Amino acid sequence: MEKLKWGIVSSGKICHDFVNALNDPSGPAAAGNTVVAVAARQLDRAKTFAENHKIPKFYGSYEELAKDGNVEVVYIGNTTGQHYDVCKMMLEAGKHILCEKSLTTSISLTKELFELAASKKLFLMEAVWSNFFPTYKELKKLISAGHVGEVTRLEASFGIRISGVLRLTSKELGGGASFDLGIYVINIARLVFGGEQPEEVIARGGLYPSGADSDWDVILVFSGGRRAVLKCSSKFELDNTARVTGTEGCIEIPDPFHCPTSFKSSLGHEFTIQLPNQAEHKYNFVNSEGLAYECAAVSEAIRAGKLQCEEYTTEDCLYNTRLVEEINKQIGV
Amino acid sequence: MEKLKWGIVSSGKICHDFVNALNDPSGPAAAGNTVVAVAARQLDRAKTFAENHKIPKFYGSYEELAKDGNVEVVYIGNTTGQHYDVCKMMLEAGKHILCEKSLTTSISLTKELFELAASKKLFLMEAVWSNFFPTYKELKKLISAGHVGEVTRLEASFGIRISGVLRLTSKELGGGASFDLGIYVINIARLVFGGEQPEEVIARGGLYPSGADSDWDVILVFSGGRRAVLKCSSKFELDNTARVTGTEGCIEIPDPFHCPTSFKSSLGHEFTIQLPNQAEHKYNFVNSEGLAYECAAVSEAIRAGKLQCEEYTTEDCLYNTRLVEEINKQIGV
Repeated sequence: MEKLKWGIVSSGKICHDFVNALNDPSGPAAAGNTVVAVAARQLDRAKTFAENHKIPKFYGSYEELAKDGNVEVVYIGNTTGQHYDVCKMMLEAGKHILCEKSLTTSISLTKELFELAASKKLFLMEAVWSNFFPTYKELKKLISAGHVGEVTRLEASFGIRISGVLRLTSKELGGGASFDLGIYVINIARLVFGGEQPEEVIARGGLYPSGADSDWDVILVFSGGRRAVLKCSSKFELDNTARVTGTEGCIEIPDPFHCPTSFKSSLGHEFTIQLPNQAEHKYNFVNSEGLAYECAAVSEAIRAGKLQCEEYTTEDCLYNTRLVEEINKQIGV
Repeated sequence: MEKLKWGIVSSGKICHDFVNALNDPSGPAAAGNTVVAVAARQLDRAKTFAENHKIPKFYGSYEELAKDGNVEVVYIGNTTGQHYDVCKMMLEAGKHILCEKSLTTSISLTKELFELAASKKLFLMEAVWSNFFPTYKELKKLISAGHVGEVTRLEASFGIRISGVLRLTSKELGGGASFDLGIYVINIARLVFGGEQPEEVIARGGLYPSGADSDWDVILVFSGGRRAVLKCSSKFELDNTARVTGTEGCIEIPDPFHCPTSFKSSLGHEFTIQLPNQAEHKYNFVNSEGLAYECAAVSEAIRAGKLQCEEYTTEDCLYNTRLVEEINKQIGV
């Protein structure tokens, strides 16, 4: 099998983790994928990154990467505020795309990118890696099979003290707790309630002086009064767990619920995975080893000529983006 | 010191625990308190209870207990729906009262009872025992001293699967998750936010077929956008913890947060107590040993001629009742 050729946009921490996971020989991505180029806005940073990860080409601009005919798919890991422009550039250059969340800062921009990708028959996905973890797949299966009965409730929170990080607080960079953290609690709500649209969205939250959201609490009301209580914050710690309650029992997904290696149910079901762990470099973020699952699934989909992954579809992304937009509207972003 | 003479209304589980804690020789209540009579609506139940707890008098009606001139204070532990009538009867008979929560099912009835008690110079308190735990006192002190900085957030939940218990689901018996469980999460919100009134109360919840509330989620918004997220349920388990977040760190109060023996803060403060434990009988409910703290404080207040305890004042009770009423209104009780 010929390896799929990746170009990397940005040389930041998450890009380091992604390339590291892609290359981990014990992981599911290494056999079918290779990184052929990296681009950063500063050439020396791209060069250092390329040297660290043994990447043959490096560029001091994203435009140069777009023009590199050897690159088949790009992983975009820069800040949210830049995603729309870079995605558009890459799609116009004929590249498939895996772009870090949030894909854009609005539902209209996100739709526009999906339409452009479809018109060019290119793969485009927002990198919500959670759904590619075997843990999430088992969770989804278990819920669908009625393990906890009818799901009546979800609680999920994601909060970390990162208000010192400019990308989170700057509106210009596409910052905001919603885009960075909130999307994970919304995403698991979609999974748990089988994609049902909430009948009501109630959000209360706070803003940074920039206007970007710092933290929020949300109640989603689904049919029959079933509810999700979601919390996110870039200002303070939350417990970062999720709990799915059904008529028969509940499933607890421990911290970090957004990339978990295990969960257990009150009915005795336990599930645990071992992450790949022979990567050459240290990871920056918790459980980043699991980025390999996402990478492997994306390359498989692209090879099969698909424009999306079934684990996280275009519709999933639109649903989540729509909710982020509604929440942001209610809290005054 | 002459012992304060208690009469017990009802022979149910909580009354068993209360008398047990009162009599525990290792606890703070035994030295100053004694139980002289018990009344139940069935004479044989009162008799059995009296025999078990070595209580000299037992009655087959509450009226007889009211007429017992030897009884100085009554502990009322029957169902919420009966509280108003029994409290009125006891106040008119000149008894001080410690009545289980919820004191009544509405703010107007609660106010009426407090006015009656005040006019007769009698002590009347809703038995929110949490605040008498040394753990809650230390928690309050720590928060007031600014240990976690300015408090910006509270999360608290109390949910247990007890929908099979008639007293919870019957509206006639004064049932409802709010009255039984919700009051605890509201009570800690008052403590944490220093008694401040929330600027906004947002409640979404469910009802039993009887019309009593089964579960709810509430967001309280305080000045400056500070928030409390409260959950309660008699239908399903919640995590039954509380977390107070401030600008400098957070305090975690473990399950069962409403009667905790310990807590710890992210800033390194840990607090633990040992409950009294030489009672003659087994307790029905978790940490019921701690009822002795409440009993001791009540008898001390009565001896000092006070009409309320500073740990849980009339104003605390009115605040909590007002919020329960607002929540119930919003969810359609």
